[in-house]
Amino acid sequence: MVIKLTISYDGTNYYGFQKQYNLDTIELKLEEAIKKITKEDIKIQASGRTDRFVHAIGQVVSFETNLSLKNNNWKKALNTYLPNDIRVIKVEQLLNFHARYDAISKEYHYYISLNEYDLFKRNYLVFENNLNINKIRKAIKYLNGTHDFKSFSKQDKDKKDKNTIKTLKLKLRIKKEENILEFIFISDGFLKYMVRSIMGVLIKIGQNKLEPEIINEIFKEDKRKNYMKTANPQGLYLYKVNYKKTLK
Amino acid sequence: MVIKLTISYDGTNYYGFQKQYNLDTIELKLEEAIKKITKEDIKIQASGRTDRFVHAIGQVVSFETNLSLKNNNWKKALNTYLPNDIRVIKVEQLLNFHARYDAISKEYHYYISLNEYDLFKRNYLVFENNLNINKIRKAIKYLNGTHDFKSFSKQDKDKKDKNTIKTLKLKLRIKKEENILEFIFISDGFLKYMVRSIMGVLIKIGQNKLEPEIINEIFKEDKRKNYMKTANPQGLYLYKVNYKKTLK
Repeated sequence: MVIKLTISYDGTNYYGFQKQYNLDTIELKLEEAIKKITKEDIKIQASGRTDRFVHAIGQVVSFETNLSLKNNNWKKALNTYLPNDIRVIKVEQLLNFHARYDAISKEYHYYISLNEYDLFKRNYLVFENNLNINKIRKAIKYLNGTHDFKSFSKQDKDKKDKNTIKTLKLKLRIKKEENILEFIFISDGFLKYMVRSIMGVLIKIGQNKLEPEIINEIFKEDKRKNYMKTANPQGLYLYKVNYKKTLK
Repeated sequence: MVIKLTISYDGTNYYGFQKQYNLDTIELKLEEAIKKITKEDIKIQASGRTDRFVHAIGQVVSFETNLSLKNNNWKKALNTYLPNDIRVIKVEQLLNFHARYDAISKEYHYYISLNEYDLFKRNYLVFENNLNINKIRKAIKYLNGTHDFKSFSKQDKDKKDKNTIKTLKLKLRIKKEENILEFIFISDGFLKYMVRSIMGVLIKIGQNKLEPEIINEIFKEDKRKNYMKTANPQGLYLYKVNYKKTLK
């Protein structure tokens, strides 16, 4: 059986998702918890990595095991062994499933507060006092659709031939009572640092440091330019991973 | 001149307010920041200590210095050197002021969420799913007024003769949209662990594990009883310190 876990985590205290020597990561904590239950050395598969300080509402991981437990017992046992900033939200058991290869699209959210700095929220969003939202809306129009996003990403040297043409649906929702901007990114694939690179440019456009038309110039570039600051990770959440309907 | 600082901090990453050998504390961070500005070794006075993981919205500290700066420059300089989870909110300069001795009353808030556990809020409130609020309200009536609170505190051995008779004003406010209980404690003085000891009993009363009338039994005791669990520190905020109006 393949176990599919939907998990949520607060990225504040971890060095990102992926295992790294001698550092606390989400992947390490999940594999440690799974080992305590199964007594097996299990390598989990995730829909994708998240960077240091990035959060997840609905990350998905999968693994194979010989142990047979009911879904609810998996959930209880895992949440017993996991630290309280990583929670299993849902457990499913499937004949055939791979968290990364079977994903058809993903959804990320990015949050900007227009309020003054609030130290109690510093790990969960970013603060920008004065943004020109009309300009941001205009830039979003240019970003939507199918484009080669390589200049909005940091390319790994060993993955040069990777397909960098992606279809992006980007929406801005304004939460008026809280004075928060919620950017909703949905795509069939996200390149490394893609959301944060886009957000970095959108913030500069909102600050009137760049014009919305820069988006079309960036699409013509071969790689990320120096003026493209990566937006801070604290505002970013892996919100949801979408899969084809599968047989159980 | 005496400098009076009103400060806010997130207690999550500190071993409480008071300096301790080799540990990060709020007091240490404040004195380090002050030293960077004044080049003087300054011992600050605080209105009182806060425990590990306890937060502050309006803690007050004071110190004397030979350095002369405008209020706004003090604030800017301090916030430059302080970590981003400790912020100076307000700076005043007074001829005569002592953050502890001049305080006439203090206000603490304690927050309980009635929602399911939310990992993103775990450091900022406590979670209780099912509380009998009417019983809590009844217990609050018994707590209000002037009492000897020694059995609601942990007494320091070297302070046995300390005055433990205090006047408490305790109010419960229900924030309906967020499903949060806000307990507002105002008193001329708080003993060690007093708020958390009271909250521990109130939570047990809300869970139907104790009856509201236990409050009057506890007041008759000489010291804290074993069944009185101290409520978790994450829900506690030093909200405000009140002083007599002073001449500037």
